[in-house]
Amino acid sequence: MSGSSFGKLFVVTGFGESHGPAIGGVVDGCPPGLELSAADLQVDLDRRKPGQSRHTTQRRESDTVEILSGVFEGRTTGTPIGLLIRNEDQRSKDYSEIADRYRPGHADYTYEQKFGVRDYRGGGRSSARETAVRVAAGAIAKKYLAERCGIRIRGHLSQLGTIRPVGFDWDQVERNPFFWPCAESVPQLESYMDDLRREGNSVGAAVTVVASGVPTGLGEPVFDRLDADIAHAMMSINAVKGVEIGDGFACVAQKGTEHRDEMTPDGFLSNHAGGILGGISSGQDVVVRIALKPTSSMRLPGRSIDRSGSPVEVVTTGRHDPCVGIRATPIAEAMLALVLMDHLLRQRGQNADVTAPIRPIPPLASS
Amino acid sequence: MSGSSFGKLFVVTGFGESHGPAIGGVVDGCPPGLELSAADLQVDLDRRKPGQSRHTTQRRESDTVEILSGVFEGRTTGTPIGLLIRNEDQRSKDYSEIADRYRPGHADYTYEQKFGVRDYRGGGRSSARETAVRVAAGAIAKKYLAERCGIRIRGHLSQLGTIRPVGFDWDQVERNPFFWPCAESVPQLESYMDDLRREGNSVGAAVTVVASGVPTGLGEPVFDRLDADIAHAMMSINAVKGVEIGDGFACVAQKGTEHRDEMTPDGFLSNHAGGILGGISSGQDVVVRIALKPTSSMRLPGRSIDRSGSPVEVVTTGRHDPCVGIRATPIAEAMLALVLMDHLLRQRGQNADVTAPIRPIPPLASS
Amino acid sequence: MSGSSFGKLFVVTGFGESHGPAIGGVVDGCPPGLELSAADLQVDLDRRKPGQSRHTTQRRESDTVEILSGVFEGRTTGTPIGLLIRNEDQRSKDYSEIADRYRPGHADYTYEQKFGVRDYRGGGRSSARETAVRVAAGAIAKKYLAERCGIRIRGHLSQLGTIRPVGFDWDQVERNPFFWPCAESVPQLESYMDDLRREGNSVGAAVTVVASGVPTGLGEPVFDRLDADIAHAMMSINAVKGVEIGDGFACVAQKGTEHRDEMTPDGFLSNHAGGILGGISSGQDVVVRIALKPTSSMRLPGRSIDRSGSPVEVVTTGRHDPCVGIRATPIAEAMLALVLMDHLLRQRGQNADVTAPIRPIPPLASS
Amino acid sequence: MSGSSFGKLFVVTGFGESHGPAIGGVVDGCPPGLELSAADLQVDLDRRKPGQSRHTTQRRESDTVEILSGVFEGRTTGTPIGLLIRNEDQRSKDYSEIADRYRPGHADYTYEQKFGVRDYRGGGRSSARETAVRVAAGAIAKKYLAERCGIRIRGHLSQLGTIRPVGFDWDQVERNPFFWPCAESVPQLESYMDDLRREGNSVGAAVTVVASGVPTGLGEPVFDRLDADIAHAMMSINAVKGVEIGDGFACVAQKGTEHRDEMTPDGFLSNHAGGILGGISSGQDVVVRIALKPTSSMRLPGRSIDRSGSPVEVVTTGRHDPCVGIRATPIAEAMLALVLMDHLLRQRGQNADVTAPIRPIPPLASS
Repeated sequence: MSGSSFGKLFVVTGFGESHGPAIGGVVDGCPPGLELSAADLQVDLDRRKPGQSRHTTQRRESDTVEILSGVFEGRTTGTPIGLLIRNEDQRSKDYSEIADRYRPGHADYTYEQKFGVRDYRGGGRSSARETAVRVAAGAIAKKYLAERCGIRIRGHLSQLGTIRPVGFDWDQVERNPFFWPCAESVPQLESYMDDLRREGNSVGAAVTVVASGVPTGLGEPVFDRLDADIAHAMMSINAVKGVEIGDGFACVAQKGTEHRDEMTPDGFLSNHAGGILGGISSGQDVVVRIALKPTSSMRLPGRSIDRSGSPVEVVTTGRHDPCVGIRATPIAEAMLALVLMDHLLRQRGQNADVTAPIRPIPPLASS
Repeated sequence: MSGSSFGKLFVVTGFGESHGPAIGGVVDGCPPGLELSAADLQVDLDRRKPGQSRHTTQRRESDTVEILSGVFEGRTTGTPIGLLIRNEDQRSKDYSEIADRYRPGHADYTYEQKFGVRDYRGGGRSSARETAVRVAAGAIAKKYLAERCGIRIRGHLSQLGTIRPVGFDWDQVERNPFFWPCAESVPQLESYMDDLRREGNSVGAAVTVVASGVPTGLGEPVFDRLDADIAHAMMSINAVKGVEIGDGFACVAQKGTEHRDEMTPDGFLSNHAGGILGGISSGQDVVVRIALKPTSSMRLPGRSIDRSGSPVEVVTTGRHDPCVGIRATPIAEAMLALVLMDHLLRQRGQNADVTAPIRPIPPLASS
Repeated sequence: MSGSSFGKLFVVTGFGESHGPAIGGVVDGCPPGLELSAADLQVDLDRRKPGQSRHTTQRRESDTVEILSGVFEGRTTGTPIGLLIRNEDQRSKDYSEIADRYRPGHADYTYEQKFGVRDYRGGGRSSARETAVRVAAGAIAKKYLAERCGIRIRGHLSQLGTIRPVGFDWDQVERNPFFWPCAESVPQLESYMDDLRREGNSVGAAVTVVASGVPTGLGEPVFDRLDADIAHAMMSINAVKGVEIGDGFACVAQKGTEHRDEMTPDGFLSNHAGGILGGISSGQDVVVRIALKPTSSMRLPGRSIDRSGSPVEVVTTGRHDPCVGIRATPIAEAMLALVLMDHLLRQRGQNADVTAPIRPIPPLASS
Repeated sequence: MSGSSFGKLFVVTGFGESHGPAIGGVVDGCPPGLELSAADLQVDLDRRKPGQSRHTTQRRESDTVEILSGVFEGRTTGTPIGLLIRNEDQRSKDYSEIADRYRPGHADYTYEQKFGVRDYRGGGRSSARETAVRVAAGAIAKKYLAERCGIRIRGHLSQLGTIRPVGFDWDQVERNPFFWPCAESVPQLESYMDDLRREGNSVGAAVTVVASGVPTGLGEPVFDRLDADIAHAMMSINAVKGVEIGDGFACVAQKGTEHRDEMTPDGFLSNHAGGILGGISSGQDVVVRIALKPTSSMRLPGRSIDRSGSPVEVVTTGRHDPCVGIRATPIAEAMLALVLMDHLLRQRGQNADVTAPIRPIPPLASS
């Protein structure tokens, strides 16, 4: 309901600024009986956290999460789960210079227009630091979906600047600092990023996330269609400027005969729809791709104004990601997990006594 | 909260199947004192309605809306506004053949998996017929936003198949059946659509919608960012498979220096961000582009299965849009109006006593 | 979420003024497959409607409901159900005199303070006319709860002024115009009401509503406890000024040893708790009692002010209920049905895979 | 939306079990610019906390609250406020005996029926421990309402068992351990409670809470009427079994001429309505009274069953409140503050541009 909550039955409510004492949140609506420990959440937090390679921000945070409630004798109780992650490595003095000026492309200006004030240190609430809470919450959802429903969610970086993978192998994704699915082009990425850092610039990226084993029937038409909630979830991630499902913008140029996924008793023959038809899951892989803009934190100066309305030149020093897409994969996975979890519970609530006329058609085999 | 409601302070709740007695809804949260009549809503309903050119479905509906409550002596009272549109031209026998079979690319299969049943006539609730209610509700929002805040919302078809406009003139948009902003290429579109109809195929499209005069400060981080709610709104429209804000997917290949919108005391120097920074409006034009897939209702046969699980060939006869993008412009405008209206009221509610430190920076001049 | 919607998974959204063209609403979230027709709803609408005895308002409305969507071939589809009831017997001239003055005890003054305007005819949106929509929606819930879960909901007038029943027999409730559970004292009520009408005064009342066969486990702590949602539902009914569960205000003077409901393997030994413990249903009868104030529409003059702030004397002519409690029983039943339906779906959604450690304890036998 | 959140624009989301590491929550939607520190919240937390007299539970908690976000340089930022209170004095071994048995009158049985499991230590989530978070959140609301709107909220114990105050003086309320408004009868209460503790029994109570200086126009008809949300808020408090507004259940026996609050240009002549008409605030004192049942934690044995379904006798040792009403006053004040805060923001959001036809009528002078 409020802007800080996401979901209707499985609800995450977050808090926390980049340089405040802590970030955290409440996960409400997790079904009881799920085995859960902080270690389960730490896995995905560790995939997301900063400072793990020279290609991301050098801020050092352990992102150690504490579970404060909702778990008893190793299992969820069905009561709200409180999560806490203390901030450790705030270097607030790095930001004192931009207290009065608006970094172009950042939320500094819009936050002050909205609230009249802002915590300028590290971007305050607008910083991507808060995404750690989403990842922790998403890890709970991921675990439930995997263990109870056999749903698997995984993502990868699918484009960095103009560079695309030349091959595709899921097994490569966790073996390089980029979540890149192609070992062959990793050196190209590293070299590109090294040049970018020397230049002081930043670059955009695209991330793809796939959920397989999704049951049919998830999605609440007409406004809470599964794809609508996915779009909401993804567009809420810092730096995201576009979301597409299945063939996405490629659909524009397609004919109907090219696009439609025909069905046979042995399964679907294609998956242009990306797993969603009429806003409801079809049992096929749910395929989502997001576009992330190049970050606005750069050493290269930009023109802007300060709080008195006077022109200034802004240079962002301090520690930043030259490409936020690099660490976005776990965040996108987490958001997809949250949406699917919420819709799973909603479908159970609304349609518990439904028997579908036929068994689900097998999906096209996952790539 | 439920899947049939959209918005938090300005809320639309809709109902109605394609071939039921009527479609309609409730608009709750409209501020009092706005002059309003059914004629105000009819304008946009008439822009959307079917059967107005040979390029769209030949179903004839007057889409005449009745206002049943919430207006007294010509002005809104602040109480909920009931809207009703009777269906007139249902040809249900056209659909009897597909009662038992699943049209590929349609929601037939997924609705039955979800609910166990479906009203198959005309696609039931999954039909785009319900978008008439969104347009009526959006017209109320548009009027308030225009008259009270000087916000102007207008859209146009920006791509049909592979065809793009060669020039751009807003004045052309209402002068052809396509909402196309370029008089020169209209004959090309007509010819293309005539061929498509003869072929019995369908094609995708893209629609762009722009809001100008938007105040700064709209959007509720982190989950109800303005762009997140816009993405939700747009992706909830039938056939939409992608949403982008500002430069959208073009951001992926951009450098930071190319993307960021620099600011001077005289205004912004560009609008790559599409009017939203950190999920909050910046006062610049809000620019949204959506991708619509080619409809799955085609005369060209497709392989599918029926309710017994046996393979069948499906041909869709009856009356259909070969390109739903053609009538989508008023729907996309309506959804953008609903989001902005909702966020305007939320910003007023949350931050009524805020004084921003500086006056808003002028936006880049609208195109 | 908005003020015109009630419920989270089973949601009713209403509209309509007392003297507007119609009242109606949308019921969203009804599970599919329930047999439903307008006749099913008409039963409870007929119990509630005005003009059926000399003891209630003489306004004549058939309160004929139309189902506009969400039902196909006699069964619900799971899509939203649109309901419409046309107003027939508005005598708006009866109200022209109070257009400018505030009837004491009515919402005239507060509506104008809130909205700046009001539809004064018949009380506009503040009129109890809108409760017909609640009763229609509640009838859908009642049917599902009864047929699918064996839950029975019934109410009765439990006090009129200072008069209480001398005996108790559920079978009497539908046999007199008061929903009074005691045949013996009906003449006393009739005589009392005749005197009241002659006097031109009004009186308060209490209504009790009971749900039996309620499963254990309904209620979402800590804020959406079952009793909290029931209190919300009941207090939202026009004229209600108090709500109590089980022993209610009698608990204040009780000792713990008197109040607690002890348990044995054969069942509970008492039901002071009214069927709810810790905000969750225990399987015992849910017992709710509400207090309704005497209506403010009286022929006896009262001091008030008019819209210019000058003192006036106000007399309410026209047609009114001297005791709104008389027609309140079906409304209270409907609200309890809506709450239980919503919570049933929420419990299914959240805890579908829960196995309770022991079978539910039998409730105390219903009275 | 979820059961752990309360409010729509000013939203509190809580977490925490009685014997877990901590309790806490998120307050979302607090307007920016309010001076706020942990010390501001500690005042009301100290009024509520256990162990301050021999009449309440002897569990010793400092209930020290930490503010983790949403405040910068001493003022709120408009971003979510994270609150944390560490548990210090859990004596979990006190509870090992009741791990397998259901204490009569407690939520043990219903929690296990709902969730399949429960954290039995100290009552887990069903314990009133979580009300500390409500009090902290309510303190934020109270401060804003007082400083920005001149709204004052204060409560008192109005009945303990059968004992009522003989006189009334607000100044006495903070001078005794009971929040009792009458110095004269304090010894009677103390003596009564000493006897009760010796007996090992418990007793019920009533608490009254009053808000003065409330502006007109708060409340969102028809379902989110101000009184409906207040009833929801109060009934959500542990042990509450009844809520009444103004004359409440006394209305049942009243005539219309007795009940209605007449108006003159100089003000209202009475306040039977308790400050709310048609679900909207009238500017008069909002008067709410709640009934709290006697707690079920008693040394006197009670019959119950255990998890195998066998009969057992249950005795509650450990540390408990013999009358939860004694510490309820700050909790009831907090809940009323939360409701008023939420509705203040909603009224601002919906009706910012409304001008009421006349200035508000002065309320009856507060007692």
